Amino acid sequence: MIAEILSIGTELLMGQIANTDAQYISRRLAELGVNLYRHTTVGDNPARVKEALGEAIARADIVITTGGLGPTEDDLTKEMVAEFFGLPMEMHAPSLEALTERMNRLGREITPNNYKQAMMPRGAIVMPNLRGTAPGAIVESGQKAVAILPGPPHEMQDMFERQLAPYLHARTGVRIDSRFLHVCGIGESSLETLLLDLFHSENPTLALYCGAGEVQARLSARVGANEDSAPLLDPLEKEIRRRAGRAVYGEGRNLTLAAAVVNALRAAGKTVACAESLTGGMLASRLVDVPGASSVLGEAYVTYSNEAKMRLLGVSKDTLRQFGAVSAQCAREMAEGARRASGADFALSTTGIAGPDGGTPEKPVGLVYVGVASTSGCEVQELHLRGERDWIRELTCVNALNALRLALG
Amino acid sequence: MIAEILSIGTELLMGQIANTDAQYISRRLAELGVNLYRHTTVGDNPARVKEALGEAIARADIVITTGGLGPTEDDLTKEMVAEFFGLPMEMHAPSLEALTERMNRLGREITPNNYKQAMMPRGAIVMPNLRGTAPGAIVESGQKAVAILPGPPHEMQDMFERQLAPYLHARTGVRIDSRFLHVCGIGESSLETLLLDLFHSENPTLALYCGAGEVQARLSARVGANEDSAPLLDPLEKEIRRRAGRAVYGEGRNLTLAAAVVNALRAAGKTVACAESLTGGMLASRLVDVPGASSVLGEAYVTYSNEAKMRLLGVSKDTLRQFGAVSAQCAREMAEGARRASGADFALSTTGIAGPDGGTPEKPVGLVYVGVASTSGCEVQELHLRGERDWIRELTCVNALNALRLALG
Repeated sequence: MIAEILSIGTELLMGQIANTDAQYISRRLAELGVNLYRHTTVGDNPARVKEALGEAIARADIVITTGGLGPTEDDLTKEMVAEFFGLPMEMHAPSLEALTERMNRLGREITPNNYKQAMMPRGAIVMPNLRGTAPGAIVESGQKAVAILPGPPHEMQDMFERQLAPYLHARTGVRIDSRFLHVCGIGESSLETLLLDLFHSENPTLALYCGAGEVQARLSARVGANEDSAPLLDPLEKEIRRRAGRAVYGEGRNLTLAAAVVNALRAAGKTVACAESLTGGMLASRLVDVPGASSVLGEAYVTYSNEAKMRLLGVSKDTLRQFGAVSAQCAREMAEGARRASGADFALSTTGIAGPDGGTPEKPVGLVYVGVASTSGCEVQELHLRGERDWIRELTCVNALNALRLALG
Repeated sequence: MIAEILSIGTELLMGQIANTDAQYISRRLAELGVNLYRHTTVGDNPARVKEALGEAIARADIVITTGGLGPTEDDLTKEMVAEFFGLPMEMHAPSLEALTERMNRLGREITPNNYKQAMMPRGAIVMPNLRGTAPGAIVESGQKAVAILPGPPHEMQDMFERQLAPYLHARTGVRIDSRFLHVCGIGESSLETLLLDLFHSENPTLALYCGAGEVQARLSARVGANEDSAPLLDPLEKEIRRRAGRAVYGEGRNLTLAAAVVNALRAAGKTVACAESLTGGMLASRLVDVPGASSVLGEAYVTYSNEAKMRLLGVSKDTLRQFGAVSAQCAREMAEGARRASGADFALSTTGIAGPDGGTPEKPVGLVYVGVASTSGCEVQELHLRGERDWIRELTCVNALNALRLALG
């Protein structure tokens, strides 16, 4: 099956937002085994929407549109699809009911414009919108179909997953099941070399995606609609885990390193504190990002000045004088001091030069020390990072979290 | 002048990256007064690139392509443009020289593939790439032109600004100068109402963009290539500042609220400390994002647990028992405690319920208190925020930074 994406919205042509909807749908179509050869974006202009729709329908089996489902005059996607297929627009009673209920719940009046959102091309398969006011639809005509999705990403994604993905499954007769293995501590090219022969397989397939300081491996198996994918995916996952060893920190599309660390701490009944210099709170914030972090993180210290490092963490004046704040010795005393002051089981420290200023030939921008203190002492890593200020701070957090993960054993 | 964007790259159709290049170019074309009616994305496939190029050229005066300039077989943008216009490909000596020099500098060997990157359609205006190996080009044919840009965003943006933007200026004979006023503390719709009559002007124009907890006003004047835009922009800026008053925190495309706060603190010779509960280090991290933050922020406390609030900040047990950690009283004691412990001139505190769990009917998810302590006491704001966990934490930071900005006077 061949698909095209037609994104509708003047805000995209004005560059006010990036087309993340197209990215999301593209990724999911690849996972679903649907071929995608083209994205087109046009503004909220009837003639240009209709022209682009006609071209896309001529080339593809299914055209997926986003945007143009709002209550205003400018929102004309459904109308243009109906016109293209020669279908009248009709009031869709269940949609009007859902809309009325939603407005009542929010204590808002229904306006005439809202009625427009409940109008549908005759015969359309209506897709309720559980996160907003604009329902979507699938309009079929012969072998061709147009799927109409709302523009706001959280509405679009919910509708795609609940309603469009099963529809595409049913049409293609196949299902693509994917697993996502997260790897930290092996670079992308080293991992690629390590797994080289595994990329030749056609089913299941293996692909790598590079993130900030980590790599995601996607394992995908194409199976019949009612077939089990485990016999294809289990051996591949096992083999990758065998080769990459402890660098694999977990499985799951939306898993983050911070969540893996929080979960591991919770499972072990352990706590952590942070002592941050160049990351300035970013590391603690990554942990607090994870719902339920309160059971593993009680406190953290942002000690940006030398004076704060001494007073709050007990870093010695001699250390700062002899080695400077950006040193393995300082990272060690910061982590040990944070662990002592907080009473936590583990403490992480970060100190380094994020730039753009402050670098010297001996201590260039990107020189970073990360410490992990625990009952068994303190391990310090020296890192040589490259990039802009925020990228260096980001990679520092990833390295610190990964060091804690490995220390958790 | 009418433009179209043609993005070339299978990674876009696979959803591996979002098309931020298209967003950047779209925004800049709007600012340059060039009309843009369509984006198209195709993969690294010769037939589909050529087909999409032909369609775009038929509709537009200039087609701007991104991607497909790498050294591999798959990279075929220049070749397809040359074929489309019936031009031979020729070695471009200055590009080869620049490439050789770059490779020597990096200590790398030139491969046969690299020569491909120095080949250009005959007669093209070559745009050197100051940030990468692939030069770009402008190919003119009659009244039509194709501008070929590299895909990596930092290379593309640099080439666009240095070379394509002046070319577009010269072709349109006009220049659009823009100013960006940043507004925090007035919502988008209130600001729109406040400035309503100013939107009717055709030159200069005014547009609002909504950010996280703040709004950006773009003032744009269309002037002749050598004309001064200040006589058009100065009165409009003055009028907006008069109406929005202190909600305007500064001017400049890349200005952030955190940078405005750091700059204001530096100008006043003042320092700040943070005491963070739900933001968990995010607030301090926003300040540390700004180069030179070390002169205004020495330390911050992430006190996620009640025990840490008491021990590090001196919040009283009675306050926590009587009012709870999410209360104006606790926010006040946190800010005052952080100011006392750090010796900073100001201290900011945040406490609240970020969700998804932990809300009650009395204290629902989104209830947040933000405190600002200074020599003249402590002001606490109660906020009722809506959204996901990270959005609530993000808006809390914006509110805290803005409260400090206003306290700075």
